[in-house]
Amino acid sequence: MIRRRKTRPVWIGKVEVGGRAPITVQSMTNTDTEDVRRTVRQIRCLEKAGCEIIRVAVPTVRAARALAAIKKRISIPLVADIHFRHTLALESIAQGVDAVRLNPGNIRNPKQVRRVVRAAKEAGIPIRIGVNSGSIRRPGGREKDLVRLMVRRTLSYCTQFERLGFRDIILSLKASNCMETMEAYRTVAGRCDYPLHVGVTAAGPPETAIVKSAIAIGGLVSEGVGDTIRVSLSGPPVAEVEAGIEILKALGLRPAGIEIISCPTCGRTQIDLVRLVRDIRRRTKGMPGDLKVAIMGCVVNGPGEAREADVGIAGGKGFGYLFKNGKKIRKVPEVQFADVLMKEIERLLQKRGR
Amino acid sequence: MIRRRKTRPVWIGKVEVGGRAPITVQSMTNTDTEDVRRTVRQIRCLEKAGCEIIRVAVPTVRAARALAAIKKRISIPLVADIHFRHTLALESIAQGVDAVRLNPGNIRNPKQVRRVVRAAKEAGIPIRIGVNSGSIRRPGGREKDLVRLMVRRTLSYCTQFERLGFRDIILSLKASNCMETMEAYRTVAGRCDYPLHVGVTAAGPPETAIVKSAIAIGGLVSEGVGDTIRVSLSGPPVAEVEAGIEILKALGLRPAGIEIISCPTCGRTQIDLVRLVRDIRRRTKGMPGDLKVAIMGCVVNGPGEAREADVGIAGGKGFGYLFKNGKKIRKVPEVQFADVLMKEIERLLQKRGR
Repeated sequence: MIRRRKTRPVWIGKVEVGGRAPITVQSMTNTDTEDVRRTVRQIRCLEKAGCEIIRVAVPTVRAARALAAIKKRISIPLVADIHFRHTLALESIAQGVDAVRLNPGNIRNPKQVRRVVRAAKEAGIPIRIGVNSGSIRRPGGREKDLVRLMVRRTLSYCTQFERLGFRDIILSLKASNCMETMEAYRTVAGRCDYPLHVGVTAAGPPETAIVKSAIAIGGLVSEGVGDTIRVSLSGPPVAEVEAGIEILKALGLRPAGIEIISCPTCGRTQIDLVRLVRDIRRRTKGMPGDLKVAIMGCVVNGPGEAREADVGIAGGKGFGYLFKNGKKIRKVPEVQFADVLMKEIERLLQKRGR
Repeated sequence: MIRRRKTRPVWIGKVEVGGRAPITVQSMTNTDTEDVRRTVRQIRCLEKAGCEIIRVAVPTVRAARALAAIKKRISIPLVADIHFRHTLALESIAQGVDAVRLNPGNIRNPKQVRRVVRAAKEAGIPIRIGVNSGSIRRPGGREKDLVRLMVRRTLSYCTQFERLGFRDIILSLKASNCMETMEAYRTVAGRCDYPLHVGVTAAGPPETAIVKSAIAIGGLVSEGVGDTIRVSLSGPPVAEVEAGIEILKALGLRPAGIEIISCPTCGRTQIDLVRLVRDIRRRTKGMPGDLKVAIMGCVVNGPGEAREADVGIAGGKGFGYLFKNGKKIRKVPEVQFADVLMKEIERLLQKRGR
């Protein structure tokens, strides 16, 4: 249902971004990059959670010098996040990173930017040009100006890079506001064919950040804009990866895995649905295979939604009906709900696995 | 920036839905409606959280008969959720509810539906026609068919109601899937001027449901579609209200209150930012007034984002800079971050209050 914008393919290590590649999920470590052991440990956790590209801050020469050691011990591509000092970018490239992210605007001397571009070209790695709303001074604080300035600035950097024969470019234009973020990406999407790294910057605490990111990233991706995504939130990076994957799942761009279709409970609910949902969610987390599992509190929407699902329970009072592939199978006492559902889920997965 | 679709205004009690009214947030109780005391207690909690319209399930005659007593003790409009038995709708209307929600498809006899419509007309209250994907049998399970069937079914109910001279109608067309939900609402929005109650049905556990709802509700509302919203999740109804409000805030449709612009932390962060964000969030929750508070972990995005904010901290190592209205004010030791920020927030709010 989603028709992706056509973009030039760019490779970050062995991961393709843009072109025909599926949308990837990325995050950023929050450990001290100089601390190789802790940084590698966090990256491995993130890999396990589904992170496909990882970025690390490179604020010092010692951090840059740690990159080769980090890269050696992880399986996903490593991106160096550079600000202010072009020498940090040069050292990161020398260390073998898979990409560099920088905002040319905060490296004052254009000659230094050109040096970095040439080094990236030689190393055959891409550069993400990341222009954030925070780096653009608002003349009168007017929103339209901000978006226009972000887009204009970004495209002028592209031109500078292109003049050096460099086109392995990924772009990001993050604002801390959904509507501005969406407008900036939509506008730039119409004016070039570079793949886009989509996200909201400084999105805030998790409760706010997940909503902002789902609206902006989800909205853009549903329109076909966006090739790699990052949810940013003031919290553990694993939560960023999980939220990013949820967004792609919600849009049908990732296998949903064991998808739980469950009702919000209401005055009709006579079973402990919230606990059952939490229980099944925990027990099915990370299971391989795609299944829709309906867990419904009553006989109103229950049978209907359970019919759409591969397997489901529609609860009554102290009992419920097991549904399979749209058919009511049998009555089940409430105490057995979780075990019966798990057995059916495992059976269905096994059957499909064959 | 958002241009709302033009809709006919409908009143649920003293709350306008559609027309020029702001988008309202609603939820549904999950207590036993017959238990007046517990239901009223839950509704009051929801009111406090910002819920503006409340719906209760009416599965029995005793539940219907409890409605007058519930209504008397709450301040927000009360909607009766009816399935199967039209007599429950008639009794609810007699009890003085502010609106009825039903799916005419599950009241078998059209004569009975007409009786309910006439009673609502006489009482001067609206009916929400709620058609969920679960109530539509999928012929071959094809998505296009589902959306088309939902829209066709909904509009045919509208025609039936209009024949009785009844136009106080609100519509909902919820699917358990973002793309289907968005397509159903977009399609029906182009074919009538009735206000829309927007939501995703059976959205699942909170982690999934909030993402699905933010994408679908946020996406529709950002396009101007939607007059009242409900986030549905398998969890406490207060979480539904909070998520609904976050969606409207993220789109600039609600005063953001004390909005925290905070970074995701990274290898550059040398302060305990996550704790500070959580602390300030807790201490500013529910404070009246609008302020942007930037809490940034480093000197890269920090000063920029802090400049966009009314007040902010950009952290260094063991210290940070206080920013106010775009200007760096002074150096602050980390242990004082929270207190200094809170003092500045209170001062700014007081100044504006005058």
